[in-house]
Amino acid sequence: MNRVAISTAATSKFTKATERSIFDIACEPCVEVLNNHGDKNIDALLFSSCSEEQYGSAIISEMLGIKPKISQRIDNLCNSGTNAVTTAYSLIASGLCDSALVVGAEKTQSKGNRLIWDVTRGSFNFPVHWASMFAKSHMRAFGTTDEQMALVSVKNHKNASKNDCALFQKPVTLNEVMASKMIAEPIKLLDCSAPCDGASAVLLLSEQRAKKAKNPIWIRGLGQQTSGASFANMDSMTTIETAKTAARDAFEMANVKPSQVDVAEIHDAFTILEIMAYEDLGFAQKGKGGKFIEHLQEEIMINPRGGLLGCGHPVGATGVAQVAEIALQLSGKAAERQISGCTIGLVHNLAAAGSSASVMILGN
Amino acid sequence: MNRVAISTAATSKFTKATERSIFDIACEPCVEVLNNHGDKNIDALLFSSCSEEQYGSAIISEMLGIKPKISQRIDNLCNSGTNAVTTAYSLIASGLCDSALVVGAEKTQSKGNRLIWDVTRGSFNFPVHWASMFAKSHMRAFGTTDEQMALVSVKNHKNASKNDCALFQKPVTLNEVMASKMIAEPIKLLDCSAPCDGASAVLLLSEQRAKKAKNPIWIRGLGQQTSGASFANMDSMTTIETAKTAARDAFEMANVKPSQVDVAEIHDAFTILEIMAYEDLGFAQKGKGGKFIEHLQEEIMINPRGGLLGCGHPVGATGVAQVAEIALQLSGKAAERQISGCTIGLVHNLAAAGSSASVMILGN
Repeated sequence: MNRVAISTAATSKFTKATERSIFDIACEPCVEVLNNHGDKNIDALLFSSCSEEQYGSAIISEMLGIKPKISQRIDNLCNSGTNAVTTAYSLIASGLCDSALVVGAEKTQSKGNRLIWDVTRGSFNFPVHWASMFAKSHMRAFGTTDEQMALVSVKNHKNASKNDCALFQKPVTLNEVMASKMIAEPIKLLDCSAPCDGASAVLLLSEQRAKKAKNPIWIRGLGQQTSGASFANMDSMTTIETAKTAARDAFEMANVKPSQVDVAEIHDAFTILEIMAYEDLGFAQKGKGGKFIEHLQEEIMINPRGGLLGCGHPVGATGVAQVAEIALQLSGKAAERQISGCTIGLVHNLAAAGSSASVMILGN
Repeated sequence: MNRVAISTAATSKFTKATERSIFDIACEPCVEVLNNHGDKNIDALLFSSCSEEQYGSAIISEMLGIKPKISQRIDNLCNSGTNAVTTAYSLIASGLCDSALVVGAEKTQSKGNRLIWDVTRGSFNFPVHWASMFAKSHMRAFGTTDEQMALVSVKNHKNASKNDCALFQKPVTLNEVMASKMIAEPIKLLDCSAPCDGASAVLLLSEQRAKKAKNPIWIRGLGQQTSGASFANMDSMTTIETAKTAARDAFEMANVKPSQVDVAEIHDAFTILEIMAYEDLGFAQKGKGGKFIEHLQEEIMINPRGGLLGCGHPVGATGVAQVAEIALQLSGKAAERQISGCTIGLVHNLAAAGSSASVMILGN
């Protein structure tokens, strides 16, 4: 089996809705990645997006002046970016490609922001409604509090304030989160991430090609799981079972334990999801996610770029931006927000109320 | 490297526009494939479509009652299906998955039928306009005739008449093609394929899993190439350079020569494309594609299911249906249209005026 490395990564500034085309947005981080790489000979261009534009991967290839063998768009809602990185991994590990540029991009007004197929959600097709149900269930079962959820928002906004690419640049206080507008009880405005314009890109290389890279970061473990599409099919309201399965497979493939992880990007579209992820990933015991955020120390840094809460959530770009952040952290290129001495990183991503999940383990 | 097999394949009847959802259409051949397979434990569900529906792969998984690890939609216009099969191959060859169900589906009114991004096409954003330019160039350069193009339509409609799944069930005569309505000179109505509703599915297995399959068909060679998205960037009007590159790579990977191919599915969205493909694939010398159709003998069977001209062209389903046909032919399950004694098959697919191309070699 060929090992696969991430050699370079870039994320452009996430912004409120602009008039820019999805392709302009997508090209921005790719130009930086290609400049870092110093070579336009790229075997695959994988475009992660929920955009309705057709043949985007060919358009982006042309705009970048590259002629990849394989180009395609990949979509799986919020998980699109991690699916695209997994596909890039497989194209290289299988020997079909030696290099793959993955770019995720989205515009604020994306069809990916709503879930209209699942009639079991009734009229509740905005994600905040299922976040509300998760939060209420977790509160009932384990005594998780509004304040604990708010702490996630405070932490991630604080981290985002050190990240020039984040949509939100200002820290928020616990009181500000608690006093923010109630959207769907108990979820308040500052418990929610915001759709935005944004793009991120990572370049994956085969082991042979990565020899020339300065500080390649290796993809050590990959896990994904899909349970279906309907919220009504969820096995539990307090656990994302797909994430548990994906984590088990990724840790096993990487031969790594949760306690060895130094830095993690966690899907925090809503604060309750980060708390549940602590448990699903094995960082905290079941039911102790709320306590975990209260006592989160420096053994592990969660969402150093600011997460979805602080950075914004451009659907198809998010998974790529998460992978880009962990690659930057592990290669010591995370600037102001660099975590010192980190060697093992994790990416956790979800789509559609956890009906699918991805977990990746990266390492030096 | 793990070898990868196709164990079972199914294509549903292609029809004129219906009221059925894209998901209903997609599930039909999947049910047949899963019944043949006898096991719902599937590692990946890859959905090939230009549909605007979101998270289709999760929806189809739920409708089929499967819970794959990896599910995603893949789009690359007419090439979507061959891209999806290539992705499935890589997921298995890389060791991430042992089984992958690829389903392509499209509705007649798909955004994939038009190319609106490329302003170099001016108002000519229907594919028939570039087919017209290819045909005129080939006629000027090599003396290719209207009658030779018409022969492609006659052959493929004749083949389709033996295929219950084809949109068009009646043979057409040379005179009927020649007398059909002029669409964009010299392309007449019966030189064109038609958008339609349709779906096709194939199941790919790892070598280990394929041991239990009755007559697995192996994916021996894969080649893909993208040149960009703009028609104005085409290197030639008489050769699809991407197809030549893809063919070279696929033949090399498979260690097979064009003369060894017994049966081929060729992208004939317009008759001129099949004639150009004869040359690009090495079946005929450059410029002799027109003569090749006049003297096409039984050494090689081209488009036994009827091609896009006879079957219709449901964009995201076409590439999968091509692979399904070759797998059925090589495993002796092609019913009335079975080519006797075929052991090596080829799939040739294009997207967006040949700005990307795929070639696959399959074998027993």
